[in-house]
Amino acid sequence: MSLHIAVDIGGTQIRAACYPLDSLTPVCVDRTSTQGGGQDPISRLLSLIESVWPEDGEVAGIGVAAPGPLDPFRGIIFSAPNIPGWKDVPLRQILQERFSVPVALGNDANLAALGEWQYGAGQGHHHLIYLTVSTGIGGGVIVNDDLLLGAHGLGAELGHVTILADGPRCGCGVRGHLEALSSGTAIARWTKEQLESGVESILDGDSIISAKIVAEAARSGDALAIEAYRRAGYYLGIALADYLHIFNPTAIIFGGGVSKAGPLLFEPARAAMKEHLQTSQYLDDLVITSAALGDETGLIGALALARRLTQSSVAHTVETE
Amino acid sequence: MSLHIAVDIGGTQIRAACYPLDSLTPVCVDRTSTQGGGQDPISRLLSLIESVWPEDGEVAGIGVAAPGPLDPFRGIIFSAPNIPGWKDVPLRQILQERFSVPVALGNDANLAALGEWQYGAGQGHHHLIYLTVSTGIGGGVIVNDDLLLGAHGLGAELGHVTILADGPRCGCGVRGHLEALSSGTAIARWTKEQLESGVESILDGDSIISAKIVAEAARSGDALAIEAYRRAGYYLGIALADYLHIFNPTAIIFGGGVSKAGPLLFEPARAAMKEHLQTSQYLDDLVITSAALGDETGLIGALALARRLTQSSVAHTVETE
Repeated sequence: MSLHIAVDIGGTQIRAACYPLDSLTPVCVDRTSTQGGGQDPISRLLSLIESVWPEDGEVAGIGVAAPGPLDPFRGIIFSAPNIPGWKDVPLRQILQERFSVPVALGNDANLAALGEWQYGAGQGHHHLIYLTVSTGIGGGVIVNDDLLLGAHGLGAELGHVTILADGPRCGCGVRGHLEALSSGTAIARWTKEQLESGVESILDGDSIISAKIVAEAARSGDALAIEAYRRAGYYLGIALADYLHIFNPTAIIFGGGVSKAGPLLFEPARAAMKEHLQTSQYLDDLVITSAALGDETGLIGALALARRLTQSSVAHTVETE
Repeated sequence: MSLHIAVDIGGTQIRAACYPLDSLTPVCVDRTSTQGGGQDPISRLLSLIESVWPEDGEVAGIGVAAPGPLDPFRGIIFSAPNIPGWKDVPLRQILQERFSVPVALGNDANLAALGEWQYGAGQGHHHLIYLTVSTGIGGGVIVNDDLLLGAHGLGAELGHVTILADGPRCGCGVRGHLEALSSGTAIARWTKEQLESGVESILDGDSIISAKIVAEAARSGDALAIEAYRRAGYYLGIALADYLHIFNPTAIIFGGGVSKAGPLLFEPARAAMKEHLQTSQYLDDLVITSAALGDETGLIGALALARRLTQSSVAHTVETE
C-alpha cells in the first residue's frame, strides 16, 4: 500500500502524520516542540518523520507546510519566524537525501488553500481565495483548479496589498497593507493607541492588549472594542472586493484565530465588500465560509501537496533544482 | 488552408482581419465606424466579417475583442460604452448562427494580455501582467500559462483595486480605485482641480484639460503638470507592488495612450513600486516593458483567442452555454 507523510512546521510545534491512500485519517501521528531540548530543529524534524514512518508499506512522498518566506520550487526555507537558526535551509534536499522519496515544500497559507480546495470547504470550486487572519494575514489562491504561486513561489501574499496608501506601517515595513489594518496585531495596536489617547473603555491601557481580549470586550458591549473590529472589518471588506475584482472566485474561505471573532469582524467586512464592488455580479454563486479542516489544515494541506507529487501536473515541483 | 478571423470592436471603429495559419500577416483587413450610417452595429459587424471572409480556404474560427463588461464563457456583451443600443447582446450565438463556425469573445484588455503573451512582449513568460493606462485602466493576467478570467469571466479588473480607501471616486462609483488615481481621466481631473484652486501653471484652467495636454506641459517644465504625473505614477507604483505580491510575474507590459507619457509616469511608478515591496526578490527576472503589438494588440489578441478555439484546453469556451 502506498502512503504519504505530511509535516506541518508551526511556531510552537512540528507535527507529522502518515496517511494511507485515499484517506484523511492518519495511521500514525506524532509531534514535537519546534524549539528547546538538546537537538537542533532539523534533527528534531528528522526524528519526528522517522517516528511516523510506516513499518510496512511504501512511502510515495513527503509534503511539508512551513511558515515564512520560502521557495516552493527549489524547496528552500529562506527564514522561519520562530526558528532563529534557519536561514536558506534546503529542506527538500535534506529530506530527499535522508529518506530517498520525493519531497515537496509549501507556504502554510498556500497549502491551507490547497487542502481546503481538495478536501475541505473549497471542494468543487475552480477559483477560490483562502485567507488566514491571525497575528498576520496570509493568503492562498486557486485559479483554474491550480495553486497560484507565481514565477518564484512568492505570489498570493494577500495580506500585503495596499488598501490605504500612507496608512499604518505593516510588519513587512510597507505602509497601508491590509495586514497593518485588519490583522490581530493591527486590532490590538489600534486599540492600545486609542486607550493611550484617553478613549474610554472597559479595557485597561496598562495591561497587555490582544485581539482576543478586544473581542471579549466587544462582546461585553464595549464601544471602543466594537469599533476596533468594525474598523478592521471595514478594511478587510475593501480587500475582499479587490480580490473579487481580481480573481472572480466562487469561494472565500477564512482561517486563523482572529476570524473566530465572527460577526464582530465579518458583518462590517461584508457590508464594506458589497459597497466597494463595481457590480453585484461578483456575488453570483459566491460562498464566504470558514475553513472546514480546522486545526488539521496545515497537515491536510501538506498531504494534498504530497499526493500531487505523484501526479504529472506538478512533477516540476520535484524535478526543478 | 485553415484561416482565422479576428474582430476588434473599438469605441470609434470596428476592425476585422483574416489570418492564415501560423502568420500574423492578414490576407485581408477591413474596418467600419462603430456608429453612424443607416445600419445598426450588428448588421455593420456582420457585413464587415463577410467582407474579409476568404473566397477559398476554410475558416476555423472567429475571435472577437470587445470593450466593456461581457461574459466570455457565454459570449454575451452586457454593455458597450460607445454603443448605446447594446445591452445583453448574445454576440457569440449571433455570429455562430450566421457563419456556422466556432466563435469566442473576450474583454479587450484580457485579449491584449493573451496576444502579447502569445505573439508580443510576453512571449516565454509563464506569469505576466498587462495593464492598459488610458482614459480608464484595464488589465489582463496570465497565470501558469493561462488567461485569468475567474468563475464568470469578471476577473483581472486591475484598475478596480482600492489603493487609497476613501480617495477620489472612480468611474465605477467606488472610492480610491487605481483608475481614480492614475488614469488619464484622473490626471486631467486632478490638474483641473489644482488650477481651479489657484495653483500656478502654464495650463489654462478655462480650457479643456486632457492627460495629453498635461504631458505636453510637463515636458515644457510646468511644475503642476509634472506633479500631476508624479502623483499618478506614485499610486500606479503602489498598485504594481500589489500585483507583484499577488502574482509574482516575470513581466509587466504596458499599453494605452497615457503610458506613452514614458518617464513622466514610469520614473515615479518604479520608485514607488520598489519602495512598497516586501522584499526585492520580486524584482528577480522582472521585465517592465511596453506592448509590442501596438495598434494591432486588439486584433492579434482576438486572433490568439480564435486559434485557441481549436485547442482542447479552451474547448469549454465554445461548448459552455
